[in-house]
Amino acid sequence: MSNPILAYKDAPTEYIEVDGIRYAYRSLGMPSGSPIVCLQHFTGTLDNWDPIIMDGLSRERHVITIDNSGIGNSEGITPDNVEAMTLDVLKVINALGVKQCDLLGFSLGGFVAQMIATKKPDILRKIILVGTAPQGTKALHSFPQLAEKAFQLNNPMESFLFIFATKSEKSRSKLTATLQRLMERKQDRDKNTSLPSVQAQIKALTRWGTDPVTIKLEEIQQPVLIIQGSHDNMMDSASSQELFRQIPNALLNYYPDSAHGSFFQYPELFVEQANYFLNTFE
Amino acid sequence: MSNPILAYKDAPTEYIEVDGIRYAYRSLGMPSGSPIVCLQHFTGTLDNWDPIIMDGLSRERHVITIDNSGIGNSEGITPDNVEAMTLDVLKVINALGVKQCDLLGFSLGGFVAQMIATKKPDILRKIILVGTAPQGTKALHSFPQLAEKAFQLNNPMESFLFIFATKSEKSRSKLTATLQRLMERKQDRDKNTSLPSVQAQIKALTRWGTDPVTIKLEEIQQPVLIIQGSHDNMMDSASSQELFRQIPNALLNYYPDSAHGSFFQYPELFVEQANYFLNTFE
Repeated sequence: MSNPILAYKDAPTEYIEVDGIRYAYRSLGMPSGSPIVCLQHFTGTLDNWDPIIMDGLSRERHVITIDNSGIGNSEGITPDNVEAMTLDVLKVINALGVKQCDLLGFSLGGFVAQMIATKKPDILRKIILVGTAPQGTKALHSFPQLAEKAFQLNNPMESFLFIFATKSEKSRSKLTATLQRLMERKQDRDKNTSLPSVQAQIKALTRWGTDPVTIKLEEIQQPVLIIQGSHDNMMDSASSQELFRQIPNALLNYYPDSAHGSFFQYPELFVEQANYFLNTFE
Repeated sequence: MSNPILAYKDAPTEYIEVDGIRYAYRSLGMPSGSPIVCLQHFTGTLDNWDPIIMDGLSRERHVITIDNSGIGNSEGITPDNVEAMTLDVLKVINALGVKQCDLLGFSLGGFVAQMIATKKPDILRKIILVGTAPQGTKALHSFPQLAEKAFQLNNPMESFLFIFATKSEKSRSKLTATLQRLMERKQDRDKNTSLPSVQAQIKALTRWGTDPVTIKLEEIQQPVLIIQGSHDNMMDSASSQELFRQIPNALLNYYPDSAHGSFFQYPELFVEQANYFLNTFE
């Protein structure tokens, strides 16, 4: 067996076909009982995972990142609701031969992770939720306006900072470094997310805040690690307390002076906490 | 130089005289730039520090536990307010030749730690606050009744569990094990805290909730690690969010299904987080 890939920049984009649709994914890291499957945020692709975080996790486990339907280099049509997104990603996980896994769900990916915990709990070992919120959260009622404002800035760096950083110089400087890391990979990058996919995701995010609550967080049996920034305007930082109150076995960690990009701002701290949680916490 | 003491059970009680009063303390661990000084909870003595936590911290740093005035084997009279307690412990820290230190403040000890951060910030490097609350917290308005109820149980184990555990079997079982660890040391133990000292401490705790707020948490420059349980009836778990909102550079960690004894219930997790925070977090 060849040496494992331990740097995300060296992980080639691979493809797997499910029901006639070709899905893009990347795989790296040490062999481990449960790979960690990473589910991405609104508009994000395989290229939006911080290399420091992917490399840090991959030193101790097998890491898989997936573009869901219609995202990045994946074919298919992005659904306008989290339930359908969940069914799609479960098909990919199954096609990859994964019998049991951990999940890292970031933002919208955290919605999918919560839905998997309800729909298919038997494949789940542990769950990490970053910058996300429970179904029915009022924070998302103003999401379309927030997304519109981010797009209107018409400057990739400022749009990124608007969502992921606070207004402090320290936070902006750290998130500027994050975006530079995300751009380091020059070859074999993902396509940007298409406008129809963005529109479908906006609808899915908005519906997460308005559709009837079907997920019973109090029934989640797996250990859960919740990470959030002190000033997340997109999800509302307080949403993570709601998750914590309802999930029986959850650790809740807030990072200082940080917005939606909490773990982008403190990637080494996150790696430390995530690896300890995944290796040790029961 | 002799080998450092790396187990709290092997740390002898030592004494230092300040202004004619003999103070009891214990010292263990690896030499380190900043020792961590541990400030204890209501009624607690040197014997109420969990050996797993002390041993875990001492593997990477110098650890000092202190009985403040009138507590355990320390002489003197326990003051009925946090400000006087703070002046006393600062004298002991100074007499021990400590120029700069980290603080671990648990509950009432966390009030003293906050006061030191205001009165003498130049000696502080980093601060860990466990199960504590800001000045003016309403949670303490009912503290005398809570303490009364704990004493009336008239059973050391049940009184301990009443304050430090939740009602769940898991939490009670873990805190039962904690109390057993606290009782493992047979020789060279502290005297129990005297009734006048207990009464003075109750007054100090109650006043913390009612006296005018003098501490400006927003001026604390040091990194702060805040640890709290999900169900702390004594301090109110939400008090830690107030600390987090006001202290500029704080990490906030909540532990699941846990009460006032959060770090007693998850001592290995706490050691991991504390050592990482003290070694690395800026």
